[in-house]
Amino acid sequence: MTGFVKTITIRFQHCDPAGIVFYPRYYEMLNAVVEDWFDEALGLSFRRMHLEQGVGVPAVTIETRFLRPSRLGDRVTFTLSVRDLGRSSIHLDQVAACGGEVRMTAALTLAYTTIGPDGTIRSASIPDALRGKMVAYRPSG
Amino acid sequence: MTGFVKTITIRFQHCDPAGIVFYPRYYEMLNAVVEDWFDEALGLSFRRMHLEQGVGVPAVTIETRFLRPSRLGDRVTFTLSVRDLGRSSIHLDQVAACGGEVRMTAALTLAYTTIGPDGTIRSASIPDALRGKMVAYRPSG
Amino acid sequence: MTGFVKTITIRFQHCDPAGIVFYPRYYEMLNAVVEDWFDEALGLSFRRMHLEQGVGVPAVTIETRFLRPSRLGDRVTFTLSVRDLGRSSIHLDQVAACGGEVRMTAALTLAYTTIGPDGTIRSASIPDALRGKMVAYRPSG
Amino acid sequence: MTGFVKTITIRFQHCDPAGIVFYPRYYEMLNAVVEDWFDEALGLSFRRMHLEQGVGVPAVTIETRFLRPSRLGDRVTFTLSVRDLGRSSIHLDQVAACGGEVRMTAALTLAYTTIGPDGTIRSASIPDALRGKMVAYRPSG
Repeated sequence: MTGFVKTITIRFQHCDPAGIVFYPRYYEMLNAVVEDWFDEALGLSFRRMHLEQGVGVPAVTIETRFLRPSRLGDRVTFTLSVRDLGRSSIHLDQVAACGGEVRMTAALTLAYTTIGPDGTIRSASIPDALRGKMVAYRPSG
Repeated sequence: MTGFVKTITIRFQHCDPAGIVFYPRYYEMLNAVVEDWFDEALGLSFRRMHLEQGVGVPAVTIETRFLRPSRLGDRVTFTLSVRDLGRSSIHLDQVAACGGEVRMTAALTLAYTTIGPDGTIRSASIPDALRGKMVAYRPSG
Repeated sequence: MTGFVKTITIRFQHCDPAGIVFYPRYYEMLNAVVEDWFDEALGLSFRRMHLEQGVGVPAVTIETRFLRPSRLGDRVTFTLSVRDLGRSSIHLDQVAACGGEVRMTAALTLAYTTIGPDGTIRSASIPDALRGKMVAYRPSG
Repeated sequence: MTGFVKTITIRFQHCDPAGIVFYPRYYEMLNAVVEDWFDEALGLSFRRMHLEQGVGVPAVTIETRFLRPSRLGDRVTFTLSVRDLGRSSIHLDQVAACGGEVRMTAALTLAYTTIGPDGTIRSASIPDALRGKMVAYRPSG
């Protein structure tokens, strides 16, 4: 198991006047990779999670390192792995690379939460079935 | 000196289907606060810096904690202070709060860089005049 | 009555690698001006409208002309006026200008709608009190 | 020839607190489809066009109709065709549909332009080779 891999092409909309990725756009990419991981690897789409289950996975902490700039047209490969799992917390690593060069790394902690009809957000235990699928993405998994 | 303060109203464009700020939007806000700090406090607009001086301040590392969700219409106050200054690195803290409640904190390291006509990015020494103005935003400054 | 006026500074986040406003960002600005018009001129914040009243004003049609590029640091003034009001439709004009030069014009038709708990969107009559305030922004108003 | 087709999945980042696509995000999608059309169908990537040729295709006018809302997880198919070509103007139509239902239509006029080193933007004749490839995307082509 080498993690969940997704390639994103750097588009015009991602780039700033210096011609490189404007860093807030990287966080949209990080979130898109998490979204695809849930949908494609864990079998739980964000649509079903949010709209049917009333569950969300908001970010609690994110640490990012921007090592090299990415430019228009670069095909950047994001590799997601699970660093650790708590009762309700999901600790993920993402490495974004292009042409053998690491561009960015991110450590994200997400919280598995329920969202009440009134918008109240509470942490909840990660269901066992979901946890079982997540564990497969631990490097030692 | 209590830091550089900027209030941002949470708009429709910042919010996700759960009705709270979608976290990539927070990074646009963090960058906007840096942009305003340069322009209003340091006397160096991003326009002049990027277009006339060929200088940029890309992010090297960013660590964020999301403590409480922010919602549509919240007026969130961002307070920026300087934690440390290296030769070319600028270490900033930002605290975002609303109604006495801290919503998010961020530690950003930016690099003072020159951008060549061919797009090459190199770190450079922060000019003394600029450094002198930045120092005033150290909590102990 | 000369319309509802709002000035927006072109930020780094709005600009593309050509150094001019990336046009999708203009639509965020158009929406922000509508949002401010509702809040500041009509006395109905998007927070209250969406979260308390279950009402929305989605766009039905938008026609835009991009006449001159806007660049980093430009202070662009948006002027919103009401072209016409139907039972549930709101026809708005916006003109964005900087330094006496028109940069963009937009004609927007919004629909006053209710949003059911199941997400169903239905057009509804604009309440008389709200309509009365909107009428004041007709050029002939 | 039925046009250039691209499917975009509606992501969390595209949706607003009402759970539907926030309309400024549609313009990012329209631009992404144009970008892919240039790259995949016309053989001219935006990277090469912007960075090597100093050419751009900024929007001059855009008319959009939003017919039905799109929601998180919808797979929306965009079909691009060429309505007309002027000396330097490119008139495009895009239709976005999902499950047989048209969600949005757009008519875009782009200008083929050169961007000087000083940022000056001038319209220019569409090169014959490029024009020849574009013509194939006329419905009657």
